[in-house]
Amino acid sequence: MSLISVGTMAFDAIETPFGKVDQIVGGSGTYVAYAAANFITPIQQISIIGYDFPQEELDELKKRGVELDGVETVADKKSFFWSGKYHLDMNNRDTLVTDLNVLADFNPIVPDSYQGAEFLMLGNLSPHIQLSVINQLKVRPKLIAMDSMNFWMDIALDDLKEVLTKIDVLMINDAEARQLSGEFSLAKAARKILSMGPKFLVIKKGEHGALLFHEDHVFFAPALPLEEVFDPTGAGDTFAGGFIGYLAKTKDISFTNMKTAIIMGSALASFCVEKFGPNRLKEITKKELDARLSEFVQLVSFDIDLA
Amino acid sequence: MSLISVGTMAFDAIETPFGKVDQIVGGSGTYVAYAAANFITPIQQISIIGYDFPQEELDELKKRGVELDGVETVADKKSFFWSGKYHLDMNNRDTLVTDLNVLADFNPIVPDSYQGAEFLMLGNLSPHIQLSVINQLKVRPKLIAMDSMNFWMDIALDDLKEVLTKIDVLMINDAEARQLSGEFSLAKAARKILSMGPKFLVIKKGEHGALLFHEDHVFFAPALPLEEVFDPTGAGDTFAGGFIGYLAKTKDISFTNMKTAIIMGSALASFCVEKFGPNRLKEITKKELDARLSEFVQLVSFDIDLA
Repeated sequence: MSLISVGTMAFDAIETPFGKVDQIVGGSGTYVAYAAANFITPIQQISIIGYDFPQEELDELKKRGVELDGVETVADKKSFFWSGKYHLDMNNRDTLVTDLNVLADFNPIVPDSYQGAEFLMLGNLSPHIQLSVINQLKVRPKLIAMDSMNFWMDIALDDLKEVLTKIDVLMINDAEARQLSGEFSLAKAARKILSMGPKFLVIKKGEHGALLFHEDHVFFAPALPLEEVFDPTGAGDTFAGGFIGYLAKTKDISFTNMKTAIIMGSALASFCVEKFGPNRLKEITKKELDARLSEFVQLVSFDIDLA
Repeated sequence: MSLISVGTMAFDAIETPFGKVDQIVGGSGTYVAYAAANFITPIQQISIIGYDFPQEELDELKKRGVELDGVETVADKKSFFWSGKYHLDMNNRDTLVTDLNVLADFNPIVPDSYQGAEFLMLGNLSPHIQLSVINQLKVRPKLIAMDSMNFWMDIALDDLKEVLTKIDVLMINDAEARQLSGEFSLAKAARKILSMGPKFLVIKKGEHGALLFHEDHVFFAPALPLEEVFDPTGAGDTFAGGFIGYLAKTKDISFTNMKTAIIMGSALASFCVEKFGPNRLKEITKKELDARLSEFVQLVSFDIDLA
């Protein structure tokens, strides 16, 4: 049982109301890998980095069971760089800088050693790249999940729609679900999006939790009301990594198990935001994770006598 | 076992993306009464109306067990009138007109027949009026819940803080909780507000559900993802009415029962938004309510093995 994760490995500069870092390791692929590694190994990473990406980070990932055969290093270019500043509400941010650097040439090659993977997580990249990875796989994975964003809806909608016909789970935020469907009601938006291809739709709502839609079913996972949200960067990718990592571990892609997987993703995301970058993800113990899962159970449990 | 409800009985003019009404019955007291009457009678109403308030509405309320001895009619003035227009997202609205009319002279007198009520719901009114009602009660109710809003935090904060020392449950929205506490994190805001007097704090987040805080406990109630939100007016008051009506019916003010009460309020609010004004609230059958409660149970149920 293995999981391929395709996504960026990058540097971020982040400013939040609580602090600032000029350069910290980031990227969707990095967060997905650290999160999923709580549940399953190997994670077969596909990404591209520049000469400046720290060897210690690669070593740390390897130590946790992340295979890097699919990570291309470009000797004369810098890694992808993103810089953003969060508003006080932490749900909104301004992008200050996007330096594509190596990402401009990203043309992922799936290593032979990755063939046969049963789970595939496509991080937020151009639909063209996502499609290329799918097409290189000789055996279709048991489950393909993908992230996307408004940017691709603006400039590559047709490509995006093509990818949607080939995947199982789409993970986007509420604004993106509204944009993609042209519907304001999330219930209606979900129905339309599910008719475009995916069997499951996860709508991420940040501090307001997440919704999972499948056929006529809907599940709502709350977010824990946290004392401190230090840095939300990577929370969505951590959520995705925890989600697919748990599915890959349990090999069960039923709606019932996906609900549990969403709680796993939410729990990991609640750790992610406690420190800058992926740092907090490297420290989570089994005991801490169990304690947090127990908080989720408490958070939504109630008694109704429907007799 | 009886419940006193203090609030406005009024006319609203409402414009939403889905339609427009120039004059429809509204007011916090009206919504609370219709919602609470699903669970308990009598509801002892305290309000003030003008000559123009429709007799049929009063008859309808009476028929449902709402006592009107505490509703003052002013023969030569109009009822309170509010007019608002909702944005597309339905979570935000602009107030177009506020004609206080009879409300300018509202000086509620608690009828003798209401003395001894065990539950008191103070709708969103000036803290001065809320305090006056509390002070007129010869025996303190078993539970006092109150609604408030940013307007009173702006112009009557000291009075509001005094009322907070005399009540059990405060129900406000997330922006108001942030304003009242000066904290952005809702977890921190809740801790501060609970130190001001209330034993329970309900933070209403509209389409994102509601949070209940008590001591170190927190409960999250989702909102159903609805296909259509036709008119959100009164949803918060309906929620409050369902909440306190259920508590009054069950006579149990434990945290555990309050969680159930919040689900009851959420379910009633989900009906309220389906039609303009309180119309939908007048039609709810027991079967419909049970079906909706079952949707809430489904919405948040998941399996976690914490072994």
